Amino acid sequence: MDRYDIAIIGTGPAGISAAITSKIRNKKILFIGDKNLTKKLSSAHEINNYPGFPKVSGKDLAEAFAGHLRQMEIEITDVKVNAVYAMGDYFALQTSGGDFEASSVIIATGVMQGKMYEGEEGLVGNGVSYCATCDGNLYKGKKVAVAGYSKKEEEEVRFLSGVAESVIYFPVYKEKDFTFPDNVEIREEVPTAVKRDKAVVTVTTNKGNYEVDGFFVLRDSVSPGQLVPGLETEGAHIKVDRSMKTSIKGLFACGDITGKPYQYVKSAGEGNVAALSAAAWLDEMITGSKA
Amino acid sequence: MDRYDIAIIGTGPAGISAAITSKIRNKKILFIGDKNLTKKLSSAHEINNYPGFPKVSGKDLAEAFAGHLRQMEIEITDVKVNAVYAMGDYFALQTSGGDFEASSVIIATGVMQGKMYEGEEGLVGNGVSYCATCDGNLYKGKKVAVAGYSKKEEEEVRFLSGVAESVIYFPVYKEKDFTFPDNVEIREEVPTAVKRDKAVVTVTTNKGNYEVDGFFVLRDSVSPGQLVPGLETEGAHIKVDRSMKTSIKGLFACGDITGKPYQYVKSAGEGNVAALSAAAWLDEMITGSKA
Repeated sequence: MDRYDIAIIGTGPAGISAAITSKIRNKKILFIGDKNLTKKLSSAHEINNYPGFPKVSGKDLAEAFAGHLRQMEIEITDVKVNAVYAMGDYFALQTSGGDFEASSVIIATGVMQGKMYEGEEGLVGNGVSYCATCDGNLYKGKKVAVAGYSKKEEEEVRFLSGVAESVIYFPVYKEKDFTFPDNVEIREEVPTAVKRDKAVVTVTTNKGNYEVDGFFVLRDSVSPGQLVPGLETEGAHIKVDRSMKTSIKGLFACGDITGKPYQYVKSAGEGNVAALSAAAWLDEMITGSKA
Repeated sequence: MDRYDIAIIGTGPAGISAAITSKIRNKKILFIGDKNLTKKLSSAHEINNYPGFPKVSGKDLAEAFAGHLRQMEIEITDVKVNAVYAMGDYFALQTSGGDFEASSVIIATGVMQGKMYEGEEGLVGNGVSYCATCDGNLYKGKKVAVAGYSKKEEEEVRFLSGVAESVIYFPVYKEKDFTFPDNVEIREEVPTAVKRDKAVVTVTTNKGNYEVDGFFVLRDSVSPGQLVPGLETEGAHIKVDRSMKTSIKGLFACGDITGKPYQYVKSAGEGNVAALSAAAWLDEMITGSKA
């Protein structure tokens, strides 16, 4: 497998800035995220404090960023990252588009919207899963529930319906004009808690309880501790120092995921710093000397 | 004296970003620096990693920043700050244009170019001065030497020549077509060291030694420890945390002065964070509660 120098996860201002500076430093980059850039970016009504762009709409700023990426021939790999594993001298990225390897990783995924459900944290990998592709086959002929937080997840529900005996789907988003196989039951409810008693996983929503064998939670972003096992976090944020280093060597973070304020130019600035720290880390690995 | 909410010192990307965000937060700001923005900014040949502006010249980026400031009706006060004193619940700014007061201060002056001279640090306020306006009158009828690091300082030399008996001027910059009164002796030399023996201050250059009563060192920027007495520094940099707080309450710093990397978007990001931290500090002072 080809190994990338730097994998950058997230296509908001932090990830874009990190990708641009990494490319300038001649690094072989894997830039993962939404091909149309982060939705949160383009949906902003008006941004007044990104210096150089007075009174700009989120759409126009996103277009300026996209133009910058095009001009530098930076491509986006539009897959979902399910997990990042620190393997010692490299990182393994498990994604919806297969596995990738990179010598260093920059996490710029933004903050997870919404809290975890009551009881969720304790059941991760033990009744609760965040990846249909990875864990779907564990539920052959069984009953699963799925909470999906965007239209994109419908594809995952279809995949699961082909594996599991039946699927209860909780769509937690607006545009609902979907069609699913007959073994998918749609419930317009919002999950609030999950618990497990022996083999029975019970999902509680605002309207009732559902007993299943497994519960898939497909959010736009996962919490950093779930994404990178072993990573030191502070609530919903990744703990970083001023050079954007995390608690794992070779792993950096930038943007909203490192904490407030949630601001475009703060994120872009941190992306730049993260990229330069990753470049210094790569040099250090090659030369064996501290940069 | 009118008291400002936030005084921002420096008109590079960090100061500009801090001014924009402070204005958005409806703060009464005093924005001090070069009316034509920092020279270092506009003289950059090409900048490739300020997201949204691919392959931009320093001049064009400076023009975009200037346009942003105009659009937000942010004005620049073009004076030189000689010292910032923490007075308890406010700060006193001693400048070439008089004294100002502000409830909080953001330092965005960039890094001092060049090192201090050998022996300089020990003689600050005791033979070495950084401010002609402040200390000139101490040298009535005496002999002074002046090292000037930009054409702007020639005005200071003229002022000193009207006070002191004689002035030896070391111009450490390019455009040299100046005319001075007869008691100014121009020496195209570069100072390297200064020492004091009783009342005699000896300035050593690359070409010789000069005995004077006082030595004025007029650099584009002074070291942060000189600018703000009592401020905790790390070499040429001000020590800050991730929220851009310094060791002095109500005083924040951003941009190159907080450390490497020296990058436009890193500075702009930090300016944004410093402004929001200053705004939170002001709220805290008013409400008496921790933000």
